[in-house]
Amino acid sequence: MKLWSMPSSGNSYKVRLALALLGREAELVDIEAGSPEIVVAHATGRLPFGKAPVPELPGGDILPESNAILKWLGEGSALVPSDPDDRAMMLAWMFWEQNQHEGTIAVRGALRHYPDRRHLATPERMAELLDRGHAALAVMEKRLAEHEWLVGSSVSLADICLYAYTDSADSRGGFDMARYPGITRWLDRIAGLPGYIGIDA
Amino acid sequence: MKLWSMPSSGNSYKVRLALALLGREAELVDIEAGSPEIVVAHATGRLPFGKAPVPELPGGDILPESNAILKWLGEGSALVPSDPDDRAMMLAWMFWEQNQHEGTIAVRGALRHYPDRRHLATPERMAELLDRGHAALAVMEKRLAEHEWLVGSSVSLADICLYAYTDSADSRGGFDMARYPGITRWLDRIAGLPGYIGIDA
Ligand SMILES: N[C@@H](CCC(=O)N[C@@H](CS)C(=O)NCC(=O)O)C(=O)O
Ligand SMILES: N[C@@H](CCC(=O)N[C@@H](CS)C(=O)NCC(=O)O)C(=O)O
Repeated sequence: MKLWSMPSSGNSYKVRLALALLGREAELVDIEAGSPEIVVAHATGRLPFGKAPVPELPGGDILPESNAILKWLGEGSALVPSDPDDRAMMLAWMFWEQNQHEGTIAVRGALRHYPDRRHLATPERMAELLDRGHAALAVMEKRLAEHEWLVGSSVSLADICLYAYTDSADSRGGFDMARYPGITRWLDRIAGLPGYIGIDA
Repeated sequence: MKLWSMPSSGNSYKVRLALALLGREAELVDIEAGSPEIVVAHATGRLPFGKAPVPELPGGDILPESNAILKWLGEGSALVPSDPDDRAMMLAWMFWEQNQHEGTIAVRGALRHYPDRRHLATPERMAELLDRGHAALAVMEKRLAEHEWLVGSSVSLADICLYAYTDSADSRGGFDMARYPGITRWLDRIAGLPGYIGIDA
């Protein structure tokens, strides 16, 4: 499988992590922000929604959206629970990630790190993102204080998709993670999975 | 099925619209923003992620996230394509909706309408949301200029989930929809489906 992936991006990392945990290979096409390669990818219509990651499916179709890609990759594997209610709850976490977690924690990290976004990083907005990001982390903590995994009793795509931006919430987003012992244990649990790779691997 | 639903909210409307199109009934528990009922729903743990809509599944579990609920309701119906690549692309639109569409168009509408959010509606933020919302609408227009539906050749959950906040993008969000003839025809197509109900039904 060919995968257009942005090395520095958590959304692309999710897919590379899932592939690693599944023991699957992909041929990576690196398209870093600001690189000539991403300009080509945009210009040739490789990114249907204008964003990475995007794999080419065996039939030749291209599929945007990290979590849709995870679902497609994970189907039939141990990363998707067999119980229908657990599967529904797994998708709930994945939609929540895109709406309440990526949209606050990853966005705050991006506003702090990319110089061309600094004009958007007003004090009001940074404070709002800090509040809403902490509210999101508290939702995860509530579950992870008492359970090992977000859904059911084993690791699923819900954990993979939430790992990327939670792991970098302190360094990139400026979130104090000492408040969340359940999340901290869960981060370690994921980093200990066979096949695990970090974002820089 | 019992459904905790916020009458004014597009996320809750999506689920009510899907039920109507599927010819299914639900027992609605209205929890409007600011009502005593929503205070009770929060206090009794009815809203696992702190947001509506939330149905109670037959087994007694409760399921947050509008798009996870749509997927759960639509499974096995004509609203979910049988082709696996089409199903993957349907989910891609649904994740994109939560990340790029709801997060810009619905958020802009909310910042304009709810007095308690007005301090966040700085000129920089409103301009950013206008730009990013138009970029999202342009992604839909590109598809809908040449196709009747977002995925495959019939209506799917992708169309249902994107209808709610696209239909109110002009009135609530302040987006000039005259730029998007493909989207406008698609909105009419959905409003003409058997069983269709509007947000105020
Ligand atoms: N909802 C998308 C978001 C992907 C996304 O935002 N990708 C960014 C990097 S984090 C990107 O590719 N930006 C490229 C560009 O804007 O040129 C997903 O989950 O895949
Ligand atoms: N990602 C969620 C978002 C739901 C959401 O934001 N619901 C808002 C109304 S639009 C809500 O219930 N707010 C209640 C509150 O904040 O008290 C979904 O798609 O269901």
